[in-house]
Parts: sequence; structure tokens; C-alpha cells
Amino acid sequence: MPAPDLEKIAADLESLEETIIARLIDRAQFRRNRQAYLPGCSGFEGEAEASLFAVRLRYQEEMDACFGRFCAPEERPFNRGLPPPRRRVHLPENCLKIDDYNRVNLTAAILASYLELVERICPPGDDAQYGSSVEHDVYAIQAISRRIHYGALYVGESKYRAEPRRLEALLASGDRERLLAQLTRAAVEDRILDRVARKVDALQASAATNTRHRIDPAVVRDYYAAWIIPLTKEGQVLYLQARRPDR
Amino acid sequence: MPAPDLEKIAADLESLEETIIARLIDRAQFRRNRQAYLPGCSGFEGEAEASLFAVRLRYQEEMDACFGRFCAPEERPFNRGLPPPRRRVHLPENCLKIDDYNRVNLTAAILASYLELVERICPPGDDAQYGSSVEHDVYAIQAISRRIHYGALYVGESKYRAEPRRLEALLASGDRERLLAQLTRAAVEDRILDRVARKVDALQASAATNTRHRIDPAVVRDYYAAWIIPLTKEGQVLYLQARRPDR
Repeated sequence: MPAPDLEKIAADLESLEETIIARLIDRAQFRRNRQAYLPGCSGFEGEAEASLFAVRLRYQEEMDACFGRFCAPEERPFNRGLPPPRRRVHLPENCLKIDDYNRVNLTAAILASYLELVERICPPGDDAQYGSSVEHDVYAIQAISRRIHYGALYVGESKYRAEPRRLEALLASGDRERLLAQLTRAAVEDRILDRVARKVDALQASAATNTRHRIDPAVVRDYYAAWIIPLTKEGQVLYLQARRPDR
Repeated sequence: MPAPDLEKIAADLESLEETIIARLIDRAQFRRNRQAYLPGCSGFEGEAEASLFAVRLRYQEEMDACFGRFCAPEERPFNRGLPPPRRRVHLPENCLKIDDYNRVNLTAAILASYLELVERICPPGDDAQYGSSVEHDVYAIQAISRRIHYGALYVGESKYRAEPRRLEALLASGDRERLLAQLTRAAVEDRILDRVARKVDALQASAATNTRHRIDPAVVRDYYAAWIIPLTKEGQVLYLQARRPDR
């Protein structure tokens, strides 16, 4: 079992910022299109109950499951009952000590928070481009989910290794507030928030202002502050609770 | 039948540049991974002949077909025999005069040129991340294909309307070279090439240099010059050849 590679973990998390922001910018080129999120309005054959968004997410995850996406620890599915992989997936050995990756699955909260975010990044109204909207939604939440679960699992393990006894004691005490405080690195979080806001600007700097809808860096910064970072720490708690004891 | 909206067409084409570049940068975070493109090496259950890339592309297009993607004129499939849409797609009325959009389908050339491009944007070697590589490949070629077919159809129609008699005469003469010359706007092409190179730089300006693999703006510029722009004009010829006569 290799030790967590802190530099690689930080690099991967940072690299996912670009991906998340690019996906949000793509989605924001379409209007809010609330119709696409209404249950019972999918307009999809044989899908009378679901929203078009929910149908697209399920189709995407069924395909991804066949390709083995959810074998990776940080790829947690939004749906249950997905098909088994149809290929053997090569996964590098990892440092995690958890038997069932789905013990750390924050997709329900990610989904709810994302649907609010759509309202804040997209221009209001309806352009009838529902298919494109939900396609980009799915890519965006998959990137957000990967970031949160990656941070939950790998940063959780590396924090544990840095001070196992203190974290064990807090876990045993059941004092969730103090455990979360112990997992918090305020200076790191501030640096992430500033960097994310700068990247939103940078990734839009060259776009034609009259044609591309621009998203507000403060909105993405707020989303990181209100959801991505807290859910990552929430996932670290779940990870530590599910972590196999060292022998 | 509305007239082509030149401003919107130019804006859409320009906006697709960001999408193409972002997708290429995403792909370039993985190694070349030639294994993923070898026929007979998919490692996918029941897919002994194909490459993993080909399997992923087919799965993606089968899903997209169900959602009605290929009802849009500029979305031409790479595969044949895809399922019919399972939802009614709302398409705005368009200005095109062509009965079968697949008369303008350049996907074979796009595919071949893209596979060469992968070699030029990705770091050499193999990181065994085949699933992620082909996932990003598919998103990248879909964006490239949309750009080329959009330019072929809509710019083709607008060029026809600007000088119908001259283009009719060139079409009738069968002089392909002169027809292509007539469709060429050298100053516009130069502007696109410069803008694309600048955007590749801008989209990578904020990325951590030690962790993100960067792609060379000249490579993307060259790909636009050697493939995207010529294939777009090639598509304009196909469009004009298939165009229904005005009444």
C-alpha cells in the first residue's frame, strides 16, 4: 500500500478546477431551461416520470459503467443499479483503506447544489436547447463530483496519516464539530477560492464578449466556498469513519 | 425560410473554438496511449474487433442518437445504423436548402486527422488511462465535427446567397479549384488562425505549469489550417452540390 503522494493529490485537485470551470462555461452558453429539470417533462419515449436531465444522467452513467468508470475510487455514481463493467480496468494501486468506495458518496448533495448553480450561471429564460443543456450539465456534475470525492478520499487519508491519534480520538468522541475543525486548513481554502476566481476570469479572457455568455467569477468562488469545499470535508469525515484500522 | 444570420453564424463558430481547445487540453492531460486505438485491443466484452476508442465513440453516438443529437444539421454522426431519436427535438427553422444533411458528412476525414493530432498534443507514452483518454477523445472530435459541419452548411448557404450566379456557374463548370478559390476568404482565415493560437495560450495561462500538460498553440493553429478550415470548405462544396434549386 503506497503512501499518499501529496504533491500529486494537490496537482490533480488543482487541475480539476480548470475542467469544472470549462464545463460550467459550456453550460452557461444555454439558457436556464427549467423545463429540462421538471419531472414528468422529459419528452423521452418510455420516460414519463423523470426529467430530461435525470434521463440523460442515467444514460450517461449506464454507458460509463460499462466502460468501468465507477471502478475508480473518486468516480461515484449518481444512480444505483448500474450495469457491471464490460472491460477490465487497470487501476494503479492506491493508498486508501476503505472496502466500499460508496461509503463516501455525496452525489445527492452535489446534484441539489448544482441545480441551484445552474440558475446562477445561465442567462434566464428558455431557448428550447434542452438536449444540449443537460448534456453539458452531466459533464459539469461529473467533474464536480470527481473533485469532491477525490479530495474526500485521498486528502482524508493523507490527513489521517499526518495525525492518526488525534483524529482517532476525535472520531471516538463523536464530536463532529471538532473533527471538522481539525480537518480544516483555512489558509489552503482561501488560496483555492482566490485561484478559482482568477481562473474563471482567465478562461474567459479571450472569449468574444458579444457572443459568449460570461459567468461571474464570484459565483463559482461562492459555489466552491459553500459546497465544493464543505462537501469535500464532509466526505473526509465519512472516509475516516469507514476507514479500516491499521494493523 | 429565414435568411442566414451572419453575425450569429460567426459568433457560433467563434464560440466553438473555446470548446474545441478546452477539449484538446483535457485530452492532453493523458498520454498518447496508442493501445486504446488498436483494433482488436478494446478489452471490451463482446468487442473483439474494434479499438476501445471505436467502441466508446459508438456507445456515445448511440446514446446521443436516442436524445436526438443528429437531428441538428451540424451534428453528423461518425457511425451508421444508429437508433432513432426517442424524444421530439425542437429545432429552430433554418435557412438551409438540403434534403439529407448527411450529404455533407466529413467525419471520416475528421477522425483520421484527429488521431494524428492526438500524437501531437499528448505527452508520449502510456499511462494505462485508456477509458479517460477515449472519453475525452470523443468529446473533442464531436466539438471539431460540429464546427466543421456548421461552417460547411451555414457559411455555404450564406456564400451562395451572396453570389448565386457566380457559384452556380462554377458548380456547372465542374472546376473544383476555382470553386474552392471562390469560397476562400484568406483574410478571415488568417484572423481565425491567429485568434485560435491566442486562445490556446489564454486558456492555459492560469494553469499550474508543473502539473498541467500544456499544448502548443502552433499545433492547434496548424490543425485549423491543415484540417478544420479546408474540411469546412470541402463541406461547403458538398453543400452547394446538394443544394435544392431556388424556386
